[in-house]
Amino acid sequence: MLCDRPKNTNVRLSLPAVCFVWQIAMIILFGIFIRYDEESDAHWIEHRKHKNISSDIENDFYFRYPSFQDVHVMIFVGFGFLMTFLKRYSFGGVGFNFLIAAFGLQWALLMQGWFHSLDYTDGKIKIGIENLINADFCVAGCLIAYGAILGKVSPVQLMVLTLFGITLFAVEEFIILNLIHARDAGGSMVIHTFGAYYGLSISAMLYRPNLDQSSALHGSVYHSDVFAMIGTLYLWMFWPSFNSAITDHGDAQHRAAINTYLALAATVLTTMAISSLFQKHGKLDMVHIQNSTLAGGVAVGTAAEFMLMPYGSLIVGFCCGIISTLGYIYLTPFMEKYLKIQDTCGIHNLHGMPGVIGGIVGAITAAAASEAVYGQEGLINTFDFVGDFKDMVPSKQGGHQAAGICVAVCFGIGGGVIVGGILRLPIWGDPADDSCFDDEPYWELPEDEESIPPIVQYNNHMRNKDV
Amino acid sequence: MLCDRPKNTNVRLSLPAVCFVWQIAMIILFGIFIRYDEESDAHWIEHRKHKNISSDIENDFYFRYPSFQDVHVMIFVGFGFLMTFLKRYSFGGVGFNFLIAAFGLQWALLMQGWFHSLDYTDGKIKIGIENLINADFCVAGCLIAYGAILGKVSPVQLMVLTLFGITLFAVEEFIILNLIHARDAGGSMVIHTFGAYYGLSISAMLYRPNLDQSSALHGSVYHSDVFAMIGTLYLWMFWPSFNSAITDHGDAQHRAAINTYLALAATVLTTMAISSLFQKHGKLDMVHIQNSTLAGGVAVGTAAEFMLMPYGSLIVGFCCGIISTLGYIYLTPFMEKYLKIQDTCGIHNLHGMPGVIGGIVGAITAAAASEAVYGQEGLINTFDFVGDFKDMVPSKQGGHQAAGICVAVCFGIGGGVIVGGILRLPIWGDPADDSCFDDEPYWELPEDEESIPPIVQYNNHMRNKDV
Amino acid sequence: MLCDRPKNTNVRLSLPAVCFVWQIAMIILFGIFIRYDEESDAHWIEHRKHKNISSDIENDFYFRYPSFQDVHVMIFVGFGFLMTFLKRYSFGGVGFNFLIAAFGLQWALLMQGWFHSLDYTDGKIKIGIENLINADFCVAGCLIAYGAILGKVSPVQLMVLTLFGITLFAVEEFIILNLIHARDAGGSMVIHTFGAYYGLSISAMLYRPNLDQSSALHGSVYHSDVFAMIGTLYLWMFWPSFNSAITDHGDAQHRAAINTYLALAATVLTTMAISSLFQKHGKLDMVHIQNSTLAGGVAVGTAAEFMLMPYGSLIVGFCCGIISTLGYIYLTPFMEKYLKIQDTCGIHNLHGMPGVIGGIVGAITAAAASEAVYGQEGLINTFDFVGDFKDMVPSKQGGHQAAGICVAVCFGIGGGVIVGGILRLPIWGDPADDSCFDDEPYWELPEDEESIPPIVQYNNHMRNKDV
Repeated sequence: MLCDRPKNTNVRLSLPAVCFVWQIAMIILFGIFIRYDEESDAHWIEHRKHKNISSDIENDFYFRYPSFQDVHVMIFVGFGFLMTFLKRYSFGGVGFNFLIAAFGLQWALLMQGWFHSLDYTDGKIKIGIENLINADFCVAGCLIAYGAILGKVSPVQLMVLTLFGITLFAVEEFIILNLIHARDAGGSMVIHTFGAYYGLSISAMLYRPNLDQSSALHGSVYHSDVFAMIGTLYLWMFWPSFNSAITDHGDAQHRAAINTYLALAATVLTTMAISSLFQKHGKLDMVHIQNSTLAGGVAVGTAAEFMLMPYGSLIVGFCCGIISTLGYIYLTPFMEKYLKIQDTCGIHNLHGMPGVIGGIVGAITAAAASEAVYGQEGLINTFDFVGDFKDMVPSKQGGHQAAGICVAVCFGIGGGVIVGGILRLPIWGDPADDSCFDDEPYWELPEDEESIPPIVQYNNHMRNKDV
Repeated sequence: MLCDRPKNTNVRLSLPAVCFVWQIAMIILFGIFIRYDEESDAHWIEHRKHKNISSDIENDFYFRYPSFQDVHVMIFVGFGFLMTFLKRYSFGGVGFNFLIAAFGLQWALLMQGWFHSLDYTDGKIKIGIENLINADFCVAGCLIAYGAILGKVSPVQLMVLTLFGITLFAVEEFIILNLIHARDAGGSMVIHTFGAYYGLSISAMLYRPNLDQSSALHGSVYHSDVFAMIGTLYLWMFWPSFNSAITDHGDAQHRAAINTYLALAATVLTTMAISSLFQKHGKLDMVHIQNSTLAGGVAVGTAAEFMLMPYGSLIVGFCCGIISTLGYIYLTPFMEKYLKIQDTCGIHNLHGMPGVIGGIVGAITAAAASEAVYGQEGLINTFDFVGDFKDMVPSKQGGHQAAGICVAVCFGIGGGVIVGGILRLPIWGDPADDSCFDDEPYWELPEDEESIPPIVQYNNHMRNKDV
Repeated sequence: MLCDRPKNTNVRLSLPAVCFVWQIAMIILFGIFIRYDEESDAHWIEHRKHKNISSDIENDFYFRYPSFQDVHVMIFVGFGFLMTFLKRYSFGGVGFNFLIAAFGLQWALLMQGWFHSLDYTDGKIKIGIENLINADFCVAGCLIAYGAILGKVSPVQLMVLTLFGITLFAVEEFIILNLIHARDAGGSMVIHTFGAYYGLSISAMLYRPNLDQSSALHGSVYHSDVFAMIGTLYLWMFWPSFNSAITDHGDAQHRAAINTYLALAATVLTTMAISSLFQKHGKLDMVHIQNSTLAGGVAVGTAAEFMLMPYGSLIVGFCCGIISTLGYIYLTPFMEKYLKIQDTCGIHNLHGMPGVIGGIVGAITAAAASEAVYGQEGLINTFDFVGDFKDMVPSKQGGHQAAGICVAVCFGIGGGVIVGGILRLPIWGDPADDSCFDDEPYWELPEDEESIPPIVQYNNHMRNKDV
């Protein structure tokens, strides 16, 4: 097999080449296509008068910027630090997360722009704060996928994964949101389900039968677990902003935040319960606390803007904490052993299953919607029953929501198989089986204090001398 | 004595049972009682037209959501990481903080809802963003109490502490804010004073004469102190949001943020000064920097929304930095030795004394208020001299403020003694004296790199294999 | 020479004295000068009616508070944790950063207030949220300077550096913004260029020929690098808030955030590319990832509010990632060897060069501005062509921008030489050459788990016993 050749992890040519060429391509494409929208352009003052907008505070920036920054923190610190839990892959966890996201958001602005923000009068994509949020969302799909293959791939492979992932995401999102007219404010389907199955399929394609050669590094140390809790907590705290960031102004943002807040609270309790119940001596497992506590946020993603009701949110969170934690205990080892899917971070438990559940919850909640609960205008606004869809009814909307789940799963698996196949080519500089989960191949590592006898330590050279 | 039996820290049945039963109770109670308020309900659009509200931006969500998220960060990352300073109790510090807060906020929504947000027309509690902030506030009281007993209790005990703590809080808050009509925007009295004395009383009830058996773990290591600084800084930075989160729209939020910002700045300087002055060789002590720098935020909690004046805020911060740091140096050892109160985090210095000072500052500032300074309407708005209290005058308000302090102290001590008594029952799975401040009884710990000889290390097993 | 005497790092008298005296001075000056402005004063309700402001949401607080808090996080966590990368100077990095900032922001409110917010009717400085942001900005200049001398000075020296730094900053800012009428929303010139050259000049004045005696501590360990990434990411994520915090309401804030977001994304890719390309085996260097990825944010500081265009932002970020990383590789060693400037954090690469580039980009963008792109009103608003400057034209504005760069560099170098001279006096308690980059002289350090044999470890004393 191609992949069995001796591995060369030197990315000194390939990584800079990919970064430079793709960044230059971005600049050219941005030059051709991307401009400010009417709320971020200097003509805003004229636009404002023209549209009779009474105050600058009604610029969309003030509705969404706080949520945007919360989402931004989730992408870079949340996902980044969640992936620092491995004892010797913290640099790769947070660093490659940074690289993927920084590239991905640029490509996402273009891809999503062509589908959603193209101004047909001049052929330009007009961007504002909502585009930035959507770009961050799009990146989240790729970061989820990264979780499955954490520690087993090179940065060049991650760039390829991101290029294709963003592209697939934009197409899938367009199909689900615009063609099928499903609603998915928090992305249970378009982000989490897609991202999880995309990553798992890639991981299956890159299956390493001898991965146990790296088992010494496939675990945490005390402080790396504390670092990972930074990621967990930021994801947990800001998830209400994630699910409400692009919902409609007013009650929809307000309600989405409340629902997410409640679902996540319930998830924490059931995660702790199951974690304790299934361990010898009732001890809690940090893997569960770091991951499964977030499942409720994933699972209310679609329905957060609906009238899910506070107790509905609690029920969703309650169930997902249980399912996700049991997933870590039973399903992840099963998938590795029988399905040949190695899932480093357990994204199937955190994003895959909860994402599908979220889609189902969304479908049920949509199908059960009524004018009695939403009000006449509220129903139209919440489900966007306007234009081509002005004759839509809730029960039918439920069916469309369900169709959305299938599209997300299919795109995830299909895309992952293809991209995984590409990533198997022996040109990407991925690590050998015995140097997975190790920063050594791709990072200059500081000499480690602890491993050096006191005297020798004082002769180790200052960091900057090596440059 | 009951507590002297050999300890069994196995919480495999009790912790899951408590989590499941209480979470299910929450779902049922939420189902019966909790609904969206008019600003988060899909009928908002009709409500908006009915009330002649010109824009969605006037939904309370946009006034308070940024502050809410800052408060949320304080609760989970701020308090959580502040409690990671112990060398081997970082998991318990941040993890149990997470558990307490996730349960507490649900119970707080109910308890506070019954007192403050009950809609008598249909018997439902209507929640919006302000309720979420208040629930976080309520949780803060219990997290403060946790600081006193950090490392000495089981998670089941913490759940019990939280259940009663939230209940007591809601009653005490209702008495202070509604019956006595004291103002306490930042909660110097209702949160900090109550929380501190509640925790200290519990700690006194759970006094461990042989706690020095755990002294080897009762301290920090270099990196755990840096982790704790994350908590300190997030508390410090976002305290202006804490004190302004539920004040009136407009100038009151604005002024509360400014006052808190200034008080905290002054506290940093006097804390550093005292810390250096009282150590041999003038070295700074991380315990003081991590904690006492926050005392100014506690102490302007009540008066932050008043016309305390910028210099007034500096004076409050100045004094509290001194008092709090001296508390760590002299009072904490004194209390342990003579009063039999073991206060792990020194909450008496960070929340107890500054909370009482904050109540006093609030009383004085309120008593000194005048129309000349506040303006006629400003005075009425700031002190809410409407309805039953429309004949109130500042000097009398000062007396009411002072009464509030007493109520907070009494509820804290009284509640703590009762709850502490309950927690002494030998059924809660608390650790033995020689395994306090240790994560080992309640957490699966990763094998530690440093303590393993290099060869053996490579044979230690991968984390996920144990599941 | 004076500085060659044996060093005494005991700051037990000097540090408390400086902290107390200066804090008391602040209280007195605040008492005399500082009051609330009309948006944070209790008279706001009357002001609002008088000015016909329709809603409390138009209080400046709601336009700027989220950005303010992001900037606040950058100052305390961003700069603070970025400076924790040294293996044994994390306390000093984050702790002294805290001290400088807490003092500096008070002094900045006064200094900037006298220049910009003095109400001539009553001789008072009226402060609101914008003043707090500007105070944080002012502090940033001093924190940048601290980066050059990190680990080589005493806290007392840092207080002196801050006192003079803030003073110089306020004068320089007044000249650049008000007299020269340059625009500099994100402070490429007034903050970054000034701060960098101020710090480098001080470092040159404090040159230590025998600094290699501390070389064993002049480097990172694995976890200190991860801590530093917290700082990096918070600076990176919130830089859009930094550059948009004080721009005009509406499109200017919106556009500044977009431009900064894009510039930073491009910088990440070119930083990674250069870092990999110039290391043996193509490995990435954490020093570059931690620092150079931020250069794009510095370099769009001035032009972020202009119509730089999305592709323009990408180009700026693209170039600065390259220049900054090459600076770390070639320029920093060169400056140390030939110019006798020891730059611990490489601030010349992160703030100096990108700051100057940012000034130049601003000058070019301003000079190229036209009514076609900005609209008539947009041009006037963006460049503030009103009052004395109502006859200004873009080409001339470009010249004024360029003049601003020169003023910033001159103030930085001139001020740094003078202050550096003062800091050479042998009275400040700075560390000897062989105890630089070490927390030991100024901090009580916990005994270190790793360096203690297991048995002895259990006898080490509990932390609080030493008080």
